[in-house]
Amino acid sequence: MVLERIHSSEDVKRLSSKELPVLAQELRARIIDSVSRNGGHLASNLGVVELTIALHRAFDFPKDALIFDVGHQCYAHKLLTGRADSFDTLRQFGGLAGFPRREESPYDAFDTGHASTAISAAAGMARARDLVGGSQSVVAVVGDGALTGGMCYEALSDAGSSKLRMIVVLNDNGMSISRNVGAVSRYLTHMRSSKGWFEAKHVVGDFLRRIPVVGNSLHAFFQRIKNSLRNIFVQDRLFDSLGFHYLGPVDGRDITGLERLFRRARQLDEPVLIHVVTKKGRGYSQAESDPTRLHGTPPFDVHTGEPLSPAGKSMGKAAGDALCAMAAADSRIVAVTAAMTGSTGLGEFASRYPDRLYDVGIAEEHAVTMAAGLAAGGARPFVAIYDSFLQRAYDQILLDVCEQHLPVCFLVDRAGLIEDGVTHQGVYGNAFLTQMPGLTVLNAATCDELQAMIRYALTLDAPVAIRYGKTETENVAVWPREKPYAPMWPLLRTGDELAILACGAMVGQAMRAAELLDQQSLRCAVYAADCIQPLDENVLNQLKDSKLVTLEEGVVSGGLSSLVPAWRAAHGVCKPLLTLGVEGLCATQGDHTLQLRAQGLDAESVARRIAQWNKESKA
Amino acid sequence: MVLERIHSSEDVKRLSSKELPVLAQELRARIIDSVSRNGGHLASNLGVVELTIALHRAFDFPKDALIFDVGHQCYAHKLLTGRADSFDTLRQFGGLAGFPRREESPYDAFDTGHASTAISAAAGMARARDLVGGSQSVVAVVGDGALTGGMCYEALSDAGSSKLRMIVVLNDNGMSISRNVGAVSRYLTHMRSSKGWFEAKHVVGDFLRRIPVVGNSLHAFFQRIKNSLRNIFVQDRLFDSLGFHYLGPVDGRDITGLERLFRRARQLDEPVLIHVVTKKGRGYSQAESDPTRLHGTPPFDVHTGEPLSPAGKSMGKAAGDALCAMAAADSRIVAVTAAMTGSTGLGEFASRYPDRLYDVGIAEEHAVTMAAGLAAGGARPFVAIYDSFLQRAYDQILLDVCEQHLPVCFLVDRAGLIEDGVTHQGVYGNAFLTQMPGLTVLNAATCDELQAMIRYALTLDAPVAIRYGKTETENVAVWPREKPYAPMWPLLRTGDELAILACGAMVGQAMRAAELLDQQSLRCAVYAADCIQPLDENVLNQLKDSKLVTLEEGVVSGGLSSLVPAWRAAHGVCKPLLTLGVEGLCATQGDHTLQLRAQGLDAESVARRIAQWNKESKA
Repeated sequence: MVLERIHSSEDVKRLSSKELPVLAQELRARIIDSVSRNGGHLASNLGVVELTIALHRAFDFPKDALIFDVGHQCYAHKLLTGRADSFDTLRQFGGLAGFPRREESPYDAFDTGHASTAISAAAGMARARDLVGGSQSVVAVVGDGALTGGMCYEALSDAGSSKLRMIVVLNDNGMSISRNVGAVSRYLTHMRSSKGWFEAKHVVGDFLRRIPVVGNSLHAFFQRIKNSLRNIFVQDRLFDSLGFHYLGPVDGRDITGLERLFRRARQLDEPVLIHVVTKKGRGYSQAESDPTRLHGTPPFDVHTGEPLSPAGKSMGKAAGDALCAMAAADSRIVAVTAAMTGSTGLGEFASRYPDRLYDVGIAEEHAVTMAAGLAAGGARPFVAIYDSFLQRAYDQILLDVCEQHLPVCFLVDRAGLIEDGVTHQGVYGNAFLTQMPGLTVLNAATCDELQAMIRYALTLDAPVAIRYGKTETENVAVWPREKPYAPMWPLLRTGDELAILACGAMVGQAMRAAELLDQQSLRCAVYAADCIQPLDENVLNQLKDSKLVTLEEGVVSGGLSSLVPAWRAAHGVCKPLLTLGVEGLCATQGDHTLQLRAQGLDAESVARRIAQWNKESKA
Repeated sequence: MVLERIHSSEDVKRLSSKELPVLAQELRARIIDSVSRNGGHLASNLGVVELTIALHRAFDFPKDALIFDVGHQCYAHKLLTGRADSFDTLRQFGGLAGFPRREESPYDAFDTGHASTAISAAAGMARARDLVGGSQSVVAVVGDGALTGGMCYEALSDAGSSKLRMIVVLNDNGMSISRNVGAVSRYLTHMRSSKGWFEAKHVVGDFLRRIPVVGNSLHAFFQRIKNSLRNIFVQDRLFDSLGFHYLGPVDGRDITGLERLFRRARQLDEPVLIHVVTKKGRGYSQAESDPTRLHGTPPFDVHTGEPLSPAGKSMGKAAGDALCAMAAADSRIVAVTAAMTGSTGLGEFASRYPDRLYDVGIAEEHAVTMAAGLAAGGARPFVAIYDSFLQRAYDQILLDVCEQHLPVCFLVDRAGLIEDGVTHQGVYGNAFLTQMPGLTVLNAATCDELQAMIRYALTLDAPVAIRYGKTETENVAVWPREKPYAPMWPLLRTGDELAILACGAMVGQAMRAAELLDQQSLRCAVYAADCIQPLDENVLNQLKDSKLVTLEEGVVSGGLSSLVPAWRAAHGVCKPLLTLGVEGLCATQGDHTLQLRAQGLDAESVARRIAQWNKESKA
């Protein structure tokens, strides 16, 4: 095993050129093996194995800084930098993170998770270096999918015009999570498929070998061959107009070629963008043929590529089904997604109404304002975006949708504690969405309730946000299947000692906690407090003399945990109140049950905390 | 007067070509006169007078949709669309808005205020039109400054690849508020100054006259002359690579030429970008020579261009002075601004430390993550951004700064109620910033306190946000000039009936309210609750048995208004509590005192509300 000898960048550099393909093969095998057992991001990581090896050979990490945009492509990097032994704990509770984390290794220069931030971070690090006159390189590896995000252009424009010495490696696999959209994607496709690139495939290896090994007059060399480079590589317009020296496209399989190009680019004193063509899922046929499904995957059978255990009942699919049914009767209904058609359950809608589904790429800000434009033009847009990604559009939700009171409905998927951990936790939605004036904020506990809420949203001529988890985890009859939704809090269980106001996915934990407390003769009522803006003031008024517990899978610095105490204070209610939710930074990851327990939000913890508090608040 | 006869787009169309320059002159005079008396956005509006007339002649508004990006350039549009009579109320309390507002006129197709949203909104409206098979045009007018914002690229890329029929008019005056930065700005400069453009100035008028008036075979005509167009106009790379048909640059003074070009572009079935070169402040020499100062201005002397009344003591300047002093001793200190160097008080810093001031253009998301990169690289960045614009970077503050616990200090200028009204209100900062784990959130009441807080921020190895208004409105000795700041709540006034916790700029109102209440024998203590994350738990513990009033110039759905009730609930405190702040949508504008009164937050209203509540909470 070559990989066994690798504990740092230095070890990668010591390998002979014959050992490199062996290392690549071992890395792939290790990634496939581990992800098949634990789940994770597969296709994107398989695509960058050679690219990662070449980076570690050409640069001196961690002195040089390496920033992976999103971080869906850092597994090989983790395996090469002293984390091979613990690699099987990846994305597990308490284990290695699935994304780069500064606290995990000096080789991880910047934490990522959301798209399109790496060039900005790299620009900052390059400036910090220049401030003290350092010489190290700063490298951002960015997928072509992340390039749809506007932040990339803000950063390219800034870095390009400021002539910052930094390198952007464009990892172009033609996809983000699903097939890419947008003009830039088409532009890159054109670059890849143009005559220049086909020529380059044959010529580039030879060309790269002609670069002098001792790089003394390298810049002069580069200047001299710039014209011939232009003939070998493709004529770029886009990145050049942003101030970047473009090199590419080059073959992402050619470790030695990439390494030489990186070594040379490293010595250029200007912003450089190297366009590397890779293939998602490379080396694993199931991932190559279905990279969308095997982008992020639960544990799967290595031979078939099929998931081992069937996923739970998808809330996203329930949302998509409801939309399809409504769209048949109402031609105003359209759907908007930010590179997440399949994963937000809109696949069926996209097939049946291809002209009414707008996938704008990884561009949440634009998605929201574009939806506001749709609504201003008379359409009824439903915008499906994950909870943690919707944070990107705080300002647009506030000013473009809510200030204008436009009937946009946000389908806020992946609310709650998320396997991917800190950057993907859907725990801020209730907190920031309830700051938006006139926005109805709902949390669905079950698929039935979610569908009723979606139908309800269409009846309002106003903005609505509906939050829900990936799968239906609870089997609680919160809302009958065909009953029209009304923004009120159903009483699910009576009890005279205190009342639990449980929000969305927490309803099931609340019911079990109430059962446990019942055994201690502490009788708790449970309400499904799923509509948190507006609050159900009837219920709050009825409960004016009751002790209350609020329970939500979200931060306590907002949402139900803030709204209920504030309502009670404003209404002169002085009764004990306990708010249970996520406190501080939500840094857990992995199994949902373990995360809930760590946050003290599983039924047992909730029961224990309520019992303890009840005792204290009596004293 | 030609303007007296204009009440709609139709009236503009009826004018003879000889009347057009007269109208332009009258519009300019009216704008200068009104802004000199009431304040407002001057230079940007003077630059687009001819452009606006040409738009109204070429298109059929409001059937066609016109969206002004930012809206700093909609005054001529308002004057031409039935709002000339009320134009003198512009930006006044209860008067016309300084920005486009759908509720104000059907000619305002979409509300704007923050940069870079118009292309997204236009894309949505174009799609809504195509959904029902409409034929109207959708036009977005975007300044070159707003083009630094990443949302523009998200929208251009989406619209370009989707081949949406829409028109982007690029109003290129070479500036945003101050001189533009970034590669795109350099790109446009290149386009303007290239040989093609100089030729075009002479040829384009003639060329435009050769366009057939009856547009039957227009598309064929355009195809035929595309090559000659390429010779007349400049070869574009950037917009073409984003899928837009580029036409330009054209002279923004030539009403007839613009009108013809718009009429033709209107009939093209594809995304079109028309590059119009304008000049900020055109027709008013003081504004032409100092467009930055006369971008947004208080009332001024028409003859000199100088402000009539001296502005109050600038908090931004105090911040800049503190930074300059610190930077002399600490080379790690750098400043980041998003096209706001002067208006955030960093002018002096920029002069003294040009290499340590990074103006990234209108790009708040990039500014924040770039600052995180600076901090990760060992620098100590201070990021000066207005409160309402910082909303753009919710996700970046959360994940790129706070999750990584990087020592970035946000200088959050223009907090509180803002003359510009709803889109610029700095009333959400406390609410959303206190959701960020590990972020210290401070509010400065005075310049002295602000400077103490800035020095304090440098002592923390952690993220800090400091919020403050434009000018020092209060002369309360909250924090002694040279005393090191500590995150605690000074007791400014004793009183045994109840305690007012006043935040930042509200301290002065609280002190006056306490005096008024004193006259009614209601003795109130006043604390300066300027540090709201963390809360001063010593004070809260001391006040466990007290009635409390919180007072902040911000939304009650967050900030102090949520944190104090939540703290009290969590600590089993059951005493009456009143939260005073902004409720619901903050739609007031104009004079700060009038806005405060309308929100019930001036000293008199505060005193009245406290007295009333005190009576009720006793009953």
